[in-house]
Amino acid sequence: MDDAHYMQIALNLAGSVSGQTTPNPPVGAVVVKDGEILGFGAHLKAGEPHAEVHALQMAGEKTKGATIYVTLEPCSHHGKTPPCADLIIEKGLKRAVIAIKDPNEKVAGRGIEKLEAAGVDVELGVLKSEAAKVNKYFLHYIRTQRPYVTMKSAVSLDGKTATYTGDSKWVTGEVARRDVHQYRHTHDAILAGVNTVFADNPSLTARLPHGSKSPLRIILDSDLRTPLEANVVNDKQAETWIITGKHVSEAHMATFKEKSGVSIVPLDSLDPMTVLDYLGSRKIMSLFVEGGAEVNGSFLESGAINQLVHYMAPKLIGGKDAPSSIAGTGFKYMTEAFPLTITNVEMIGEDIKITAEPRKGDTDVYGDY
Amino acid sequence: MDDAHYMQIALNLAGSVSGQTTPNPPVGAVVVKDGEILGFGAHLKAGEPHAEVHALQMAGEKTKGATIYVTLEPCSHHGKTPPCADLIIEKGLKRAVIAIKDPNEKVAGRGIEKLEAAGVDVELGVLKSEAAKVNKYFLHYIRTQRPYVTMKSAVSLDGKTATYTGDSKWVTGEVARRDVHQYRHTHDAILAGVNTVFADNPSLTARLPHGSKSPLRIILDSDLRTPLEANVVNDKQAETWIITGKHVSEAHMATFKEKSGVSIVPLDSLDPMTVLDYLGSRKIMSLFVEGGAEVNGSFLESGAINQLVHYMAPKLIGGKDAPSSIAGTGFKYMTEAFPLTITNVEMIGEDIKITAEPRKGDTDVYGDY
Repeated sequence: MDDAHYMQIALNLAGSVSGQTTPNPPVGAVVVKDGEILGFGAHLKAGEPHAEVHALQMAGEKTKGATIYVTLEPCSHHGKTPPCADLIIEKGLKRAVIAIKDPNEKVAGRGIEKLEAAGVDVELGVLKSEAAKVNKYFLHYIRTQRPYVTMKSAVSLDGKTATYTGDSKWVTGEVARRDVHQYRHTHDAILAGVNTVFADNPSLTARLPHGSKSPLRIILDSDLRTPLEANVVNDKQAETWIITGKHVSEAHMATFKEKSGVSIVPLDSLDPMTVLDYLGSRKIMSLFVEGGAEVNGSFLESGAINQLVHYMAPKLIGGKDAPSSIAGTGFKYMTEAFPLTITNVEMIGEDIKITAEPRKGDTDVYGDY
Repeated sequence: MDDAHYMQIALNLAGSVSGQTTPNPPVGAVVVKDGEILGFGAHLKAGEPHAEVHALQMAGEKTKGATIYVTLEPCSHHGKTPPCADLIIEKGLKRAVIAIKDPNEKVAGRGIEKLEAAGVDVELGVLKSEAAKVNKYFLHYIRTQRPYVTMKSAVSLDGKTATYTGDSKWVTGEVARRDVHQYRHTHDAILAGVNTVFADNPSLTARLPHGSKSPLRIILDSDLRTPLEANVVNDKQAETWIITGKHVSEAHMATFKEKSGVSIVPLDSLDPMTVLDYLGSRKIMSLFVEGGAEVNGSFLESGAINQLVHYMAPKLIGGKDAPSSIAGTGFKYMTEAFPLTITNVEMIGEDIKITAEPRKGDTDVYGDY
């Protein structure tokens, strides 16, 4: 067995808790000695022990001379928990294999320095690109102070999200729709426009067969027109914030808040970057945009997309007036079109699932880790 | 080696000449004795020898006691060439392995009867579904007397064929565009609407690196507005028919024909089924529709699609007014949407290529062969 083998186990642990650790990153750890695994750990929830603590606790008295594999640099500072670097040293580990440095300025190499100063052999960079993928929300958030944006769309093969009469139930099949709930589960927040609330009255919760964590629901509603009886207001299945314009009267906001119990957030602009700045300031690391074509259009035009998840159903809807997934003005010339890299294409039930990322931009950051 | 092995070789021969044999089907043949291949043959062009003749000629004096593998039932009638069943008997073959019966009423089992009456062992149905695929244009044409329709579209990931200003050069990359020329090469005719002629002035020829057979070009132009200087009229690279309405004056048609040299075909209606009936009567077995959104919409709504070839480029165009691939009125409810079976999804260069067929309908015919 080699370092990559054990690091992959640690990454699998980290990946399995993605979405439940915000505002912390998902981290996994494995303790190994003489080819025997002594302990597994993952950081489960902000405020609870880090991955290294769980793994070392499982290993008990056998940690002396062992190696710890950890997907992100161990912390060096006293936060809600004591520094993991100190614990690794105290437990007598001989070697620490780390996938990527923690870009958080409170750590940023200091964990590694501390370990090395204490004589622990440190190996950095094992499966670093895989670790960057597992941590892509966190890395993007730390770098930009804005949430990582996943835009979802579900269309027919001819690119329509509904018929010309607005009928949209359902475009894709059950397997694809369950996959959407998985994405909702792993994102901190979900965003839709008020037109989608009017058209579909969605609940925007995560509903998976074995339970799920619903994201914070964010509705873009510049004039605060969301009906009080809308599911996102009324069903109390998850927290909801309505982002509205500053021109909305204090009285209307106060009444709405009192009657609904949801948070009303007046912003200067509902431009995506303004909204993302605000969400970042509220420690939202990842945002799942289930748009409405106009909302999708504004995210596209402001370049605020980090990942696309695109489902295509094996059917044709046709129609000049049937809506497509992205409206807005759009780009004027083909040469200006927003370039993507297709990261995966697969069948999901009877539908096709395509994932893509902007061709340049976010992926650059992975080079540093 | 088994029967399927040799039949696959014959099918590969047939597939390689698909598109050059109209109005005859592409057929391949292999002659085998004691595990040794003695002859290959394919029908290359209408009026020229059939596959069996070429294969038996290559086998020369060694055919006695041999087996012939042929992708379609040998003919029993005197057409432009003598009956192949007679030749197989005359050459002393012991066994004939046939993929599918010839649905053409002039044959339709009589070739097999003749062989069996002469004591040749006949095995029917080896790789029949593969053979039905190779012959899908022919089988559809024989059954319906209309051409098999392949609809092509090339869109961005968000389903647009152009920007809101109409800029459409280019949506997809070079590899996908070369693939389109391959489809043009293997179809008897290509169809576009006059709006596409106005917008893009395409030549609609097949241009492959090692040469290609350009299809007959068909322009749907109800009012006969096609400009005389349009490439499809003017470049003389392939034959062009303009299908127009019967309301167009004889004088205008006569003048246009005289000045352009292209054929003008007035029909009662430009409805796809009327057009396909006409093309079938002219022995067009396969039609490649490179539509324009309105033409695509009318083909969708009349159910006149047998196959879709859909290219998706890794880019986003956006825009409420950017056109999508299929316009027209479209279906009113999701439950009415035209259901497809995805037959393949693959990367082609940087683009995604999806092929699909109507979920029910044409494929049913394959059961008979």
